Amino acid sequence: MENSIFELQYALDTFYFLVMGALVMWMAAGFAMLEAGLVRSKNTTEILTKNIVLYAIACTAYMAIGYELMYGGGTFLKDLALDGASSAELLGEAVLAESAEAGFAGGSVYSNASDFFFQVVFVATAMSIVSGAVAERMKLWAFLAFAVVMTGFIYPMEGSWTWGGQSVFGLFSLGDDYGFSDFAGSGIVHLAGASAALAGVLLLGARKGKYGPNGAIHPIPGANLPMATLGTFILWLGWFGFNGGSVLKLGDIASANTVAMVFVNTNAAAAGGLIAALLVARILFGKADLTMTLNGALAGLVAITAEPSTPTPLVATMIGAIGGALVVLSVIALDKLRIDDPVGAISVHGTVGIWGLMAVPLTKAEASFTGQFMGLITIFLWVFVTSFIVWLVLKVITGIRVSEEDEYEGVDLSECGMEAYPEFTKS
Amino acid sequence: MENSIFELQYALDTFYFLVMGALVMWMAAGFAMLEAGLVRSKNTTEILTKNIVLYAIACTAYMAIGYELMYGGGTFLKDLALDGASSAELLGEAVLAESAEAGFAGGSVYSNASDFFFQVVFVATAMSIVSGAVAERMKLWAFLAFAVVMTGFIYPMEGSWTWGGQSVFGLFSLGDDYGFSDFAGSGIVHLAGASAALAGVLLLGARKGKYGPNGAIHPIPGANLPMATLGTFILWLGWFGFNGGSVLKLGDIASANTVAMVFVNTNAAAAGGLIAALLVARILFGKADLTMTLNGALAGLVAITAEPSTPTPLVATMIGAIGGALVVLSVIALDKLRIDDPVGAISVHGTVGIWGLMAVPLTKAEASFTGQFMGLITIFLWVFVTSFIVWLVLKVITGIRVSEEDEYEGVDLSECGMEAYPEFTKS
Amino acid sequence: MENSIFELQYALDTFYFLVMGALVMWMAAGFAMLEAGLVRSKNTTEILTKNIVLYAIACTAYMAIGYELMYGGGTFLKDLALDGASSAELLGEAVLAESAEAGFAGGSVYSNASDFFFQVVFVATAMSIVSGAVAERMKLWAFLAFAVVMTGFIYPMEGSWTWGGQSVFGLFSLGDDYGFSDFAGSGIVHLAGASAALAGVLLLGARKGKYGPNGAIHPIPGANLPMATLGTFILWLGWFGFNGGSVLKLGDIASANTVAMVFVNTNAAAAGGLIAALLVARILFGKADLTMTLNGALAGLVAITAEPSTPTPLVATMIGAIGGALVVLSVIALDKLRIDDPVGAISVHGTVGIWGLMAVPLTKAEASFTGQFMGLITIFLWVFVTSFIVWLVLKVITGIRVSEEDEYEGVDLSECGMEAYPEFTKS
Repeated sequence: MENSIFELQYALDTFYFLVMGALVMWMAAGFAMLEAGLVRSKNTTEILTKNIVLYAIACTAYMAIGYELMYGGGTFLKDLALDGASSAELLGEAVLAESAEAGFAGGSVYSNASDFFFQVVFVATAMSIVSGAVAERMKLWAFLAFAVVMTGFIYPMEGSWTWGGQSVFGLFSLGDDYGFSDFAGSGIVHLAGASAALAGVLLLGARKGKYGPNGAIHPIPGANLPMATLGTFILWLGWFGFNGGSVLKLGDIASANTVAMVFVNTNAAAAGGLIAALLVARILFGKADLTMTLNGALAGLVAITAEPSTPTPLVATMIGAIGGALVVLSVIALDKLRIDDPVGAISVHGTVGIWGLMAVPLTKAEASFTGQFMGLITIFLWVFVTSFIVWLVLKVITGIRVSEEDEYEGVDLSECGMEAYPEFTKS
Repeated sequence: MENSIFELQYALDTFYFLVMGALVMWMAAGFAMLEAGLVRSKNTTEILTKNIVLYAIACTAYMAIGYELMYGGGTFLKDLALDGASSAELLGEAVLAESAEAGFAGGSVYSNASDFFFQVVFVATAMSIVSGAVAERMKLWAFLAFAVVMTGFIYPMEGSWTWGGQSVFGLFSLGDDYGFSDFAGSGIVHLAGASAALAGVLLLGARKGKYGPNGAIHPIPGANLPMATLGTFILWLGWFGFNGGSVLKLGDIASANTVAMVFVNTNAAAAGGLIAALLVARILFGKADLTMTLNGALAGLVAITAEPSTPTPLVATMIGAIGGALVVLSVIALDKLRIDDPVGAISVHGTVGIWGLMAVPLTKAEASFTGQFMGLITIFLWVFVTSFIVWLVLKVITGIRVSEEDEYEGVDLSECGMEAYPEFTKS
Repeated sequence: MENSIFELQYALDTFYFLVMGALVMWMAAGFAMLEAGLVRSKNTTEILTKNIVLYAIACTAYMAIGYELMYGGGTFLKDLALDGASSAELLGEAVLAESAEAGFAGGSVYSNASDFFFQVVFVATAMSIVSGAVAERMKLWAFLAFAVVMTGFIYPMEGSWTWGGQSVFGLFSLGDDYGFSDFAGSGIVHLAGASAALAGVLLLGARKGKYGPNGAIHPIPGANLPMATLGTFILWLGWFGFNGGSVLKLGDIASANTVAMVFVNTNAAAAGGLIAALLVARILFGKADLTMTLNGALAGLVAITAEPSTPTPLVATMIGAIGGALVVLSVIALDKLRIDDPVGAISVHGTVGIWGLMAVPLTKAEASFTGQFMGLITIFLWVFVTSFIVWLVLKVITGIRVSEEDEYEGVDLSECGMEAYPEFTKS
């Protein structure tokens, strides 16, 4: 009897992880469509290639190296030796033994593999942010090499200091010493991705023709706005898994309530961010700027990611709305600084990621502004510095920027040998 | 022990609501892609903007006003004061207290927030229907103003008379007095959306060039049929959540059977509608008309929405097929009447919504044709009249139609300041 | 009490089937987008029409005929006579009676309708494979006629010999006599689809202009690579349902572990296949070939489908990677043989389907190479021969190839009467 209830709870929590993880995997498609819609047609095949390849690299590198670094979860892979024994059986035995030790009341027990699935699909997100910021000018193979290091090492290291609970180089613990709190990763994932992107963009320089003399800024419109809108909707949907799965448990009343609250607030914040960006852009530019509106929705999502469980829906809407307003201002500011980010990724995930982290203490008593600041500065410094070094090494060895001629002709032909829309555009 | 089973059921039913709700949210993407594919390229950015903004408006207006109007659910929001206390905890306590009062056997208990999530993502659907019908000529900001009233007031009011169980202005009760039955909203959502759309279209007039002298009707082909097809697939998928979630309960045998039956019948009706529309269009036009075929699938879905749990799969296929045939005839009829509906929304959701409502008594003994008719006329009159008034007020104050020049140039540039496909089309 | 646990398990397993089934339905959208992206713009409306119509046909033909043939499941439909009684109630009673007979311990019990739903959405997959291989030259209505026979008879027959457990024409049993094992259908679904496609392609011949004199092979680039990439992402996501749902049970620890393992391995194999195809194509062609990379991901998915539960994640990655390498070589080989397959479907699903079947004994002790070979040869012979006959009959009666002029002008105008992108391409 007891066992049956336990089995059901185990199955339900496992299923919850898998469904949430599938939604997170879907975000990879969202980033691909968003970025493919916002670049010019001559660079579309290449950005699609980068996006789908980086997802595969992230899954493989994290499985081989990153999971062990971040959670000491290597045992999961090591236990499953290549001896032909059913890995499902092995997992079942290990889990039952563990659960017997801990006692059923000991809390959440679910398939290790489902936990790994949720973690592994998460990793690509940070890297997808980078691909947008360096679009239209970075060498494909240099980007993929960076992806291996980012998803196999840079991200897992900072993940180990936060969600993994390890101390930062033995110096201090973000959780125990500072109460740093980042529910689903406004900082750990989004700011991290933006920091790596910023390092790359600084070494890479702006696209030809983006900035002219006397402070002139030339807009470079995206080639396919339905694709960009689709990408945003996909990300919005996938984010329910990203935030909702980060509760890590569903099978009791408190957990179920939290998961439900997270869904409501994630949706509310996206709506708030969208409306705010629409209105701010309307005031500044006089039009209903679709790309700013899309970025506003994403900004709302990034903003609520650091703590989607404690705000009320109205507060979540406001947290999102501030994110949406910030993103418009940040895009303008980065352009003034001539930091060229074709899709606004650094603003959406970096600027608003910081806002998300700093908003946590507003609704969560245990968090403090100091603690949040310590976390964000740790994440930023670690990711920015290590990324900068890796980009620099790549720049010296292989170069990271395509030739001026290839950039002019479009990287689709030089890197991939095929056009994205061969019949729609005249070369 | 007892508590554990209760907790699991609570968690399972909550999870069910959230997954179904996520699928319904995804329908917003479906409408956006469908409509973006069926308009001309010069009006694509604007229709995308309308679709994603209306979703955000619907979520916000329904949260702030509509939920209270429709279900008296305002307590959900009021209870969660902005005092920084964990809303998840508050919800948990409230629910447990309620459940203790009611006794576990008292029926379905799940997270209030998950119920709210399912309701809030539902609201945008009615408004998405409107955006298609008024496409290519309505002012963006007038449309968004209407969206606030529709999702915050017009829809919640009729929702309160049906799903909310309130009497219509204290005069009669559709449920108690007439046994009106509309499982997932053929009438409450789809006919309502079509009624609001019809009011708008009548005040707005047809697109320039659609109708010529001597009864000439000029087809205006959509710019991107893969997008339209994708939108249809998205809606088909999302409809499993729309209808499947409307069972409102999963965690016992009878409910689980009903949810499963609803999935089977929803799919069967869509298939039936698609095949019927394909064949009818083939007979009438001599070709395999893709846009009619897509509308046939959607018609099948609308038709079964009023009662997807009682028909057998074969009957569901037939109910859908009649919807699919009807939609082709309705599109032709509306064109004859010079009611210009660029995507066929009034036919799909209005004409077929009525068919769906009237088909309920065929498989459900408790429903009657009189009762269904009372419901449909109440919904139609309420939504059509109030919408007409709101559109009229907007027409007088700000105007609802773009200038002739803007319509000729395309509303993308005048309303949004950017083209959807700047490299594919020559201006 | 006992009953409550049973009810919950019943509800959870039913829900699992429905969610997995919805993901499989979503694969129909994936095939539609993949194929629409890989053909030329002048044949896009037609391939979209074929894809969405074949899904509707598959659902209807399998419901009416196929399910009974494959599982003797006709009772499901027959029991639900058109007498207006609630089908959900009927199902509930039948299930409870059955469960009482079997005893609760008797194993997995869930809604018949949910099982049917999972089966019915599965069927279209095999047919979707065919549509890609015969693209750009096959008559639409001949194709749809074939779809009826394929989904109502050819596939259900071989399905009855494998998953249905019936003997092959009373001669031998693939399962009992040979231990043939095909978890989710590398052979039963994917090789079957490829075999039907091959028969069609052989009778149909290559597209005009594909092959020139002296062994010249002219690449015909797809019109919309973002669509093709989106299709691949959709298939990747849907495949979690395809493989994950094929465990057929979630509600106990062993089953939940298996489902989780299947998710992990499905993802890992896709990633492995993608990376291998990227690298092999890079070596052979010198570029990052996006379409090969996409096919590599799909090849990884097909390869792992025959057994996603027993490999460890690293082994799954390798099984996928071999599939990804194979697909590149197979595409080249088929082109050398002048077998024209516009989207590479025969290579992805046929060549790699065979690899998937033969890889099962590597990780599953119960399977043997002989047994797997018997299964694959049975499936291939049955599907290829019956398909060849059906295609031949269609060729004689109605013809299966469009006229040379229609092929030159594009089948969109001749078959569907509308262009997919009327504003992007000049006719």
